[in-house]
Amino acid sequence: MHTQDEDVATAHVAKRALAVVNDDKHVEAYYMGWHEAQSNPYDAVQNPGGCIQLGLSENTLSLDLLDDWFSTHSTAPALELENVLNFKAIAGYPDVYHGLLIFRNLMANFMNELYGGAVSFDPEKMVITTGATSAIEILAFCLADPGDVFLVPAPYYPGFERDIRFRSQVDLVPVPSFSSDGFAVTRAALEQAFEDAVSRGRKVKAVLMTSPSNPLGMTYSRDQLSVILDFIGQKDMHLICDEIYAGSVFGTTEFISIAELVMPPRVDPNRVHIIYGLSKVLGIPGFRVGLLYSWNSLVLDAAKKLTRFSSVPTLTQQILISLLSDTHFLRLFLSENLKRLQQRWRLVSHGLQEAGLEFVNCTAGFFCWVNIGKVASVQTKEQELELWSKLLHVEGLNVTPGSACQCSEPGWFRLCFAYVDDQTMSVALDRIKRFTASL
Amino acid sequence: MHTQDEDVATAHVAKRALAVVNDDKHVEAYYMGWHEAQSNPYDAVQNPGGCIQLGLSENTLSLDLLDDWFSTHSTAPALELENVLNFKAIAGYPDVYHGLLIFRNLMANFMNELYGGAVSFDPEKMVITTGATSAIEILAFCLADPGDVFLVPAPYYPGFERDIRFRSQVDLVPVPSFSSDGFAVTRAALEQAFEDAVSRGRKVKAVLMTSPSNPLGMTYSRDQLSVILDFIGQKDMHLICDEIYAGSVFGTTEFISIAELVMPPRVDPNRVHIIYGLSKVLGIPGFRVGLLYSWNSLVLDAAKKLTRFSSVPTLTQQILISLLSDTHFLRLFLSENLKRLQQRWRLVSHGLQEAGLEFVNCTAGFFCWVNIGKVASVQTKEQELELWSKLLHVEGLNVTPGSACQCSEPGWFRLCFAYVDDQTMSVALDRIKRFTASL
Repeated sequence: MHTQDEDVATAHVAKRALAVVNDDKHVEAYYMGWHEAQSNPYDAVQNPGGCIQLGLSENTLSLDLLDDWFSTHSTAPALELENVLNFKAIAGYPDVYHGLLIFRNLMANFMNELYGGAVSFDPEKMVITTGATSAIEILAFCLADPGDVFLVPAPYYPGFERDIRFRSQVDLVPVPSFSSDGFAVTRAALEQAFEDAVSRGRKVKAVLMTSPSNPLGMTYSRDQLSVILDFIGQKDMHLICDEIYAGSVFGTTEFISIAELVMPPRVDPNRVHIIYGLSKVLGIPGFRVGLLYSWNSLVLDAAKKLTRFSSVPTLTQQILISLLSDTHFLRLFLSENLKRLQQRWRLVSHGLQEAGLEFVNCTAGFFCWVNIGKVASVQTKEQELELWSKLLHVEGLNVTPGSACQCSEPGWFRLCFAYVDDQTMSVALDRIKRFTASL
Repeated sequence: MHTQDEDVATAHVAKRALAVVNDDKHVEAYYMGWHEAQSNPYDAVQNPGGCIQLGLSENTLSLDLLDDWFSTHSTAPALELENVLNFKAIAGYPDVYHGLLIFRNLMANFMNELYGGAVSFDPEKMVITTGATSAIEILAFCLADPGDVFLVPAPYYPGFERDIRFRSQVDLVPVPSFSSDGFAVTRAALEQAFEDAVSRGRKVKAVLMTSPSNPLGMTYSRDQLSVILDFIGQKDMHLICDEIYAGSVFGTTEFISIAELVMPPRVDPNRVHIIYGLSKVLGIPGFRVGLLYSWNSLVLDAAKKLTRFSSVPTLTQQILISLLSDTHFLRLFLSENLKRLQQRWRLVSHGLQEAGLEFVNCTAGFFCWVNIGKVASVQTKEQELELWSKLLHVEGLNVTPGSACQCSEPGWFRLCFAYVDDQTMSVALDRIKRFTASL
């Protein structure tokens, strides 16, 4: 822990900078495990005793398809750098920071098709950002002032802590859910969390949710979404719906976009804001392409101006314009990718069953929600973190502890299953089976 | 002007978002002129009555050299996308958001050579960001809390208003300078601005300056820099020195980096922070590559974490790794680029003399500081903006009014001379001569 006195006696920095440096207590294990796994990665030949990364929600299962596309399309218009005109377009300041219109058009078309035609996205309501991370942060900035509160159905994505608290200084309040209830978000729990925050003198500005859910790997039904929409309408709040895993629904449940339910007067469109991006659906987080979608003109105005700090380079947009224009390839890619996710989940769920573990039957995303604590007699958060540390340091498995997702029941863990290859996944499952057998 | 009542009666957004939407009064003319010129651009054949863009500090004079390099190096390692391993490195999450170590190493080497070997930059003190814009914003976040104040020697870069106020909500207080004094920054003016701010109950956290100066096009001497360093040391403040135009010094004056003067105990390194980037020196703002350099470990810790919102895509870094590795090409490029800037400035200064205009003899950057107000009998800020509007709408010239740079003397304008080609520049100078002759 850094303090002013220790190392910078004479030069004072801002309180908010100190908070960024120090305030990671909520999710320490999440980042620690991630980096430990990356620094000592398992390799069947080079490092068979290394750590297997099950803590990173990244999908590498279909990278070969994209790689092929890039190899055979290296002469696509966007990658041709032969003439000054083209290079000038890439080198110079863009006319707008929130995404070229042609790129936003193609993103809207892509999402329209991906969402099954149930929604028609308008490129003018779209703000392109440096990854969805930045879009979330911009929405937090726009919807709440420092010290205000967002309610977040738990368990939730550990990264929200840094996304929301760091720069926008908005506080997150978990809305608990329980395994006995299938981890459903209930009106009663929302009300309770709201009342608690208000009684502590806090202003509650929004509900923030990921749909399909990270870490639960579940889609939300129309009824469940309506419960939340009714709640935010009655409480004069906003809803931020992070739909980054739309397009990664490989199971039999249906994905319903919140956009389908935005119908005045029952639902005021000015209150609903969607997060999307290409990191998950195409498996390219390194490209840093996210977006926010809003019906609220004030939010759009402010967000567009704020993209001066987090714009996507023109080169990246040009490359993706080529890719998004190839709708034939994208259709094949998306369907093959879902097949591979399905196949991987079959392998994983089979292994978890063999290990005798309880888990949520996931249908979306790159992760599953597994109760490892029960077989290891975990009763408390401390015991959960001990178990997590043992899995990481003894078994060579980095998984995300439920407490980093603000889960109210100790013992649950998130296992990301789409980052490693088949062979590594099998070794991971063997390690899990060996561990549960040893108990 | 947007207000809550007008268009979003039921859904309230944050106060800070409203401020971003509405608070552009300081620099309205700057952005308005920029966009008007971009939307009706002069072209000798297609649009001879169009507007000539002299309001954009971008250097296109040497783009052909870079374009050639990219054309002949399209098979350089970074652009080879043939194998999965390479593509995986580009597609996946980077290990760190603040720049690959190899990229930071090459940036440090590049800067060391560019700065004439007078400084040795350490890649560990470097945080790569989405353009220098984002680096400035991150430093503002780290060094000041909302409502705190930065002193800025005026005239200054109009973009600082959005960079600093928008998101970090730090206020800028101009430190006036005068033509009678060669627009020098004086200790007396710094003291006065400081006392004024303190007497209004504000906390003054830093001096923010651009060295070489934008818009003056001048370098700072060792003595001038020492005046500022002594001041910030005695007042317990920080110095943010934006050196984005280092590498664009085409005249005979010497560029002294603030890094050369950072020597404890006289100057506490924890108080000094440098901004740099590739947008100006290579003329590639569309690549969005900037950086902050700091000796302060707390600032570095916080800044690294904040780059999750403004990181540079791995693809961009890989391409630039190839470019920065080609030191032979870069040396030729940099020297040829300075020759071209020098040549352009000769053309421009000759034209301004013929037009009978007073101007600062610039030696750095892509702009000059010209007194058009004197020949047009401008006495007030209002008259300056009338003159600006006339130049824009009647003469077809977009220049930046001094008031957008917070200049205390009405009548001065910034003319950016490196964005348009030779023929267009000649037409611009003809228009200026015609205008002054008509007075």
